[in-house]
Amino acid sequence: MFSVTVRDHMMIAHSFRGEVFGPAQRLHGATYVVDATFRRPDLDADGIVVDIGRAAEELRAVLADLTYRNLDDEAAFAGINTTTEALARVVADRLADKLQAGALGDGARGLDALIVTLHESHVAWASYERPL
Amino acid sequence: MFSVTVRDHMMIAHSFRGEVFGPAQRLHGATYVVDATFRRPDLDADGIVVDIGRAAEELRAVLADLTYRNLDDEAAFAGINTTTEALARVVADRLADKLQAGALGDGARGLDALIVTLHESHVAWASYERPL
Amino acid sequence: MFSVTVRDHMMIAHSFRGEVFGPAQRLHGATYVVDATFRRPDLDADGIVVDIGRAAEELRAVLADLTYRNLDDEAAFAGINTTTEALARVVADRLADKLQAGALGDGARGLDALIVTLHESHVAWASYERPL
Amino acid sequence: MFSVTVRDHMMIAHSFRGEVFGPAQRLHGATYVVDATFRRPDLDADGIVVDIGRAAEELRAVLADLTYRNLDDEAAFAGINTTTEALARVVADRLADKLQAGALGDGARGLDALIVTLHESHVAWASYERPL
Amino acid sequence: MFSVTVRDHMMIAHSFRGEVFGPAQRLHGATYVVDATFRRPDLDADGIVVDIGRAAEELRAVLADLTYRNLDDEAAFAGINTTTEALARVVADRLADKLQAGALGDGARGLDALIVTLHESHVAWASYERPL
Amino acid sequence: MFSVTVRDHMMIAHSFRGEVFGPAQRLHGATYVVDATFRRPDLDADGIVVDIGRAAEELRAVLADLTYRNLDDEAAFAGINTTTEALARVVADRLADKLQAGALGDGARGLDALIVTLHESHVAWASYERPL
Repeated sequence: MFSVTVRDHMMIAHSFRGEVFGPAQRLHGATYVVDATFRRPDLDADGIVVDIGRAAEELRAVLADLTYRNLDDEAAFAGINTTTEALARVVADRLADKLQAGALGDGARGLDALIVTLHESHVAWASYERPL
Repeated sequence: MFSVTVRDHMMIAHSFRGEVFGPAQRLHGATYVVDATFRRPDLDADGIVVDIGRAAEELRAVLADLTYRNLDDEAAFAGINTTTEALARVVADRLADKLQAGALGDGARGLDALIVTLHESHVAWASYERPL
Repeated sequence: MFSVTVRDHMMIAHSFRGEVFGPAQRLHGATYVVDATFRRPDLDADGIVVDIGRAAEELRAVLADLTYRNLDDEAAFAGINTTTEALARVVADRLADKLQAGALGDGARGLDALIVTLHESHVAWASYERPL
Repeated sequence: MFSVTVRDHMMIAHSFRGEVFGPAQRLHGATYVVDATFRRPDLDADGIVVDIGRAAEELRAVLADLTYRNLDDEAAFAGINTTTEALARVVADRLADKLQAGALGDGARGLDALIVTLHESHVAWASYERPL
Repeated sequence: MFSVTVRDHMMIAHSFRGEVFGPAQRLHGATYVVDATFRRPDLDADGIVVDIGRAAEELRAVLADLTYRNLDDEAAFAGINTTTEALARVVADRLADKLQAGALGDGARGLDALIVTLHESHVAWASYERPL
Repeated sequence: MFSVTVRDHMMIAHSFRGEVFGPAQRLHGATYVVDATFRRPDLDADGIVVDIGRAAEELRAVLADLTYRNLDDEAAFAGINTTTEALARVVADRLADKLQAGALGDGARGLDALIVTLHESHVAWASYERPL
């Protein structure tokens, strides 16, 4: 099994609803350092899992729609807590949509899984893994 | 599949028995930077795998019973080598006991696996993964 | 010359005023991983620059007044851009006030400089250095 | 499930064939920071997955045959693109050959998988996982 | 004293002349993770050392002229060893030229020093510091 | 001003005397990830600050006399607290002795300073800087 991972980041504001969140119920923010891992059983004809340059561009495009925003004001997140783990899924699902629309070319159709990890600090991070 | 990881550390002394360990048979020590990963297939009603703050507290509590000690003098480790991989299991099992006793609340009962990684230096680390 | 550094973090929301900031003029946020470095020419009688445990507690106390907040709503920052470099100074000055009030004990009076670095992502950080 | 990982690095020159690689079709180079992970369900009689010192030596020996070379000139890679993911497999397969030849001792025969990760920069890395 | 640092990377091939270099006399390569630090005694009217976004763009432009190349073939480096420390100076000097040509705006004229660090692996790096 | 840094590590046991150390008065241990930085105003005839390979070997030799030991039993440290900052000085002074004895060749005589940093965890480190 092969995988390739690319890293980028986004910087957002948000707040959480629920007593479990304590002071994080207040409006605050986070830098998420985001790792997107693409996995497939075999390499393509060029000897790659996916082109690292194009993978990085697609990740950047997904993050561009989220960064420098207050997620509390985004219609897409109405009524849900934009926790680190929930956002990992959002990023993964949006990347998967792009892949399925051909963003990484035909070769990328051999991918079978996508894992997205969001690092919220040097001491905490969350991941979401999904099939493709 | 979702996961959340929290990081902390402990600083211990110990020695190993067995020729394979070479100079590590002498009393020496280690800082273990410890990552505890909690995994579950779905998020709970708050949109989380487990509360990061409480997970960090529980990890800290487990490490508090180990840190600043000579493990050679601890009854719990009599007759066993406290290698990085063996200690990864000790930390994981103790965390699992706390989870099963309800330390992270009812929501945490949806967890299905726990992975603990101990980094002994910038060039070596070990992990133990177990079901919950 | 000796120094000791401790690391912690804070998670805040804010926005910037000025065209130079582009999309960062919108309300967004950041995790700042914060390093506080204490410097002195000689060690004290215990053989330390400053007690690492107490230094970490004081840094935590300074960050506790900033984290999980929207800095745009804080009176202390009215009319100023809370850029990474400006916040590095805020943290350094508040830590210096604590030191001068004796927070780290008499031994800490031998310190001659303080450097605070705020990492806003894996690809950008800022520092402020001041005498004590 | 237990695992142990050791880290080392190599510095090579190479070029790629295929339009997908863009400017990387030119002769260029890379530092690969290489992580080799050894996995097994149970610890051996000494309480280890594999001896970390010997594992590091074997990894170093594998990398010694690759580092400080132009891979375009190596017969072993004639006609293939030495991408990060392809090299992860090369390193894993060569390590596996050593294990099967007894390089890490009889204890290492309990290993069931090997994962090799090559970090090509702070923002991109690739892995290959294989059974043993 | 304030500073801001931005990070990027380049991937090059080269060889060294001189017995001291041992196997590095052969054609090989490196990924250099590059940190550029901009320093000044006071913040500008916007509360910044330099715009992080523009600083990152200028660093990227400097590295674009070096990356994905065999430095042995570059006229600019004829007769000199492109060691990590020598390249740190090249990057710093080229960035300084851009600053002096106004690339970061008038505000950047308040800068008094530039430090460039090239990380060649997880265990070795080199820096060059110069006035502005 | 140029500098080159090499990284290695050591794993030791020790205890501290003095109330300020709290639980660290008990026998415990640490992994110190050690960075040695060599500084000089100009490069030598080969275009280097110091040969990275030889610098790494000399650092390794210094650490070999400390690692896998209980520092409480070492005559060299009788009556002193082997704190992170005190050990940074020990490593720096021993490296300086080697340099002055010619360990890094004649070229290394152009060095004017040495900085040693010991990382005791992911959240604390200490440095000592001295002239050469």
